[in-house]
Amino acid sequence: MGSTVKHLAVLGSTGSIGRQALEVVRAFPKRFRILALAAGENTSLLERQISEFKPRFVYYQAAKADAISGEYQFLSLEEMAAHPEVNTVVVATPGRSGLGPTLAAVKAGKVVALANKESLVMAGRIILSEAKKNGAQIMPIDSEHSAIWQCLEGETKPPAQLILTASGGPFHHYSRAQLEAVTAEQALRHPSWRMGKKVTIDSATLMNKGLEVIEAHWLFGMPYDNIRVLIHPQSIIHSIVEFADGSAKAQLGCPDMRLPIQYALTYPERLPNPELPRLNWSLISHLDFEEPDLNSFPCLKLAIEAGKKGGTYPAVLSAADEVAVEFFLSGRIKFTAISSLVKQVLKQHQAVAQPTLEEIMTADAWAREKTLELIGGDNPC
Amino acid sequence: MGSTVKHLAVLGSTGSIGRQALEVVRAFPKRFRILALAAGENTSLLERQISEFKPRFVYYQAAKADAISGEYQFLSLEEMAAHPEVNTVVVATPGRSGLGPTLAAVKAGKVVALANKESLVMAGRIILSEAKKNGAQIMPIDSEHSAIWQCLEGETKPPAQLILTASGGPFHHYSRAQLEAVTAEQALRHPSWRMGKKVTIDSATLMNKGLEVIEAHWLFGMPYDNIRVLIHPQSIIHSIVEFADGSAKAQLGCPDMRLPIQYALTYPERLPNPELPRLNWSLISHLDFEEPDLNSFPCLKLAIEAGKKGGTYPAVLSAADEVAVEFFLSGRIKFTAISSLVKQVLKQHQAVAQPTLEEIMTADAWAREKTLELIGGDNPC
Repeated sequence: MGSTVKHLAVLGSTGSIGRQALEVVRAFPKRFRILALAAGENTSLLERQISEFKPRFVYYQAAKADAISGEYQFLSLEEMAAHPEVNTVVVATPGRSGLGPTLAAVKAGKVVALANKESLVMAGRIILSEAKKNGAQIMPIDSEHSAIWQCLEGETKPPAQLILTASGGPFHHYSRAQLEAVTAEQALRHPSWRMGKKVTIDSATLMNKGLEVIEAHWLFGMPYDNIRVLIHPQSIIHSIVEFADGSAKAQLGCPDMRLPIQYALTYPERLPNPELPRLNWSLISHLDFEEPDLNSFPCLKLAIEAGKKGGTYPAVLSAADEVAVEFFLSGRIKFTAISSLVKQVLKQHQAVAQPTLEEIMTADAWAREKTLELIGGDNPC
Repeated sequence: MGSTVKHLAVLGSTGSIGRQALEVVRAFPKRFRILALAAGENTSLLERQISEFKPRFVYYQAAKADAISGEYQFLSLEEMAAHPEVNTVVVATPGRSGLGPTLAAVKAGKVVALANKESLVMAGRIILSEAKKNGAQIMPIDSEHSAIWQCLEGETKPPAQLILTASGGPFHHYSRAQLEAVTAEQALRHPSWRMGKKVTIDSATLMNKGLEVIEAHWLFGMPYDNIRVLIHPQSIIHSIVEFADGSAKAQLGCPDMRLPIQYALTYPERLPNPELPRLNWSLISHLDFEEPDLNSFPCLKLAIEAGKKGGTYPAVLSAADEVAVEFFLSGRIKFTAISSLVKQVLKQHQAVAQPTLEEIMTADAWAREKTLELIGGDNPC
């Protein structure tokens, strides 16, 4: 497996994860062939990527963007994710747009290197069941889930507990009152990770960690009561797995997304890559841990509660958050309004247990509309 | 493998590791049958162990100790280690007395749960080559090597680097001048581990970590330049493995030897054992790391140098240390004399490269005599 060329589709190739995935591909030109690239509106970068990697299939939001001429076939995300000549699909599209191609890829039995959180949050049950049915493998790209995956390698039985670490974000130790006043600019200055805007804001609210708890629940079949979150500001330990005997394993590395991306793309091999930073063991003087503050950062609690309730609740959580974060980024609502909005939308939701994909999409649309309504109406903050 | 009863020989059953191994056996009565017990002079405890576990074979230092009557056959350590009905041999005898039975066990193709450091330090090359030839499996019981072993499970290629953690012992941050004055009683108060006297003193001088570097070299086939030591006073991370891609895994647990003992005895399974302590994740506020101080603790450096030089040097190091520690324990030499003695003995040694077992035993005897001579003659401190 390791020495055959992997034919990749990179969905979301102009985003943060997509660009870093292409950096990994660039480091190992003999191992990968980029067969498909898909982006949103950043056609100038996509054009450069097309000229460098010469993909056979391309997608971009043609209606909104300048057309790119060239020798490629225009395919939808779902078509490239399921194309017979693609064997590994990197799903790095943002938000709910990841769900369709993820589902198409697992139904086609592909290896899915999954960076998109929302697909599992919205439809974890459906995706996992389709993956199992069709022999698809999901390789997580999130650093926390990659850490857990790495720690589970070679273990014969399910672990006792998963401990997701969280940097705490830029507002670690802020009081609720202080959080009232923070700006999008401040929230985008993440202390340890280089990521896209949406996930950076979600890291600041701890919603990101909550979505990761839901992802971990599905990826590793772990009950919510056996998943916990620890704040670890240095972002060196990316997560911890505790086993039945009380022994635990942690995965460590520099906070650089190329490491989990590369692991997912070269698994089960680990390849030396001089581009990747290495931990300097002489400089790690201490690794700190503390419990998350659920009062100042209610999104984490809301997400875990939504996960436990199941059904359409996680999709509603995710959709409401996506809208709220967009409004926060454009300066139209306060940071603390994000959690208030999500909480109100969840409260008003009439959930469907074990929903179909259609019911999930209906709940998603309802949540977006409801969030907009709440923002537009009485000030929810 | 997991559900068949393992027939154990526990060599050194009245020592710290031996007693803890029997605690593990007691927790899983259906999984283990104690076929052989061997002790030194503590016949009163051995007698109780015999009456509880009813072994078929027994050894004790009959010449020195009171005879124990009972329905067992008296065998030598080597005989029980190689006995056809024994499948797993726990080698927890102290010092060089572990070498003979370890060699006998690997020659007989047994599973060897190895707590005795000296056998690998003295004759790593011979033991590993015999183990390979005869299909024996060596399962390390030392917490550091168990940690490395656990972190390597499921990995497909040799790692890039091993990082052994060390508590630093009771004299962490002591200056050389302060170390001149420390007593055996102080040295025996180890901050985190419950262990035998010899290894506790070796932990205080860091010689123990040096011996572990040599063990790691043999157990994992790792060049000395790719093994490093980090002081980690909390003894929660038991060691770390760094891989080719820059990712690292650490094994964590409470500092309790029953955990690595149980892992070695139940491998590849991990069994819940209510007797074992579990980490309280809420209470781990920080894990600290620093480089070892090779000036105040020269034994670590001496050991690594002896390991690199190879041949009979490590056996000489180990033998000189064993004698010196004995004299320190009985208050006849200073703490700092341990390293001075070892250094002088190593300096005067005429080494044999790739020695036979006989040449190793000759070097061992020479080193003991030379150490005694140096202690008896001019004060080496």
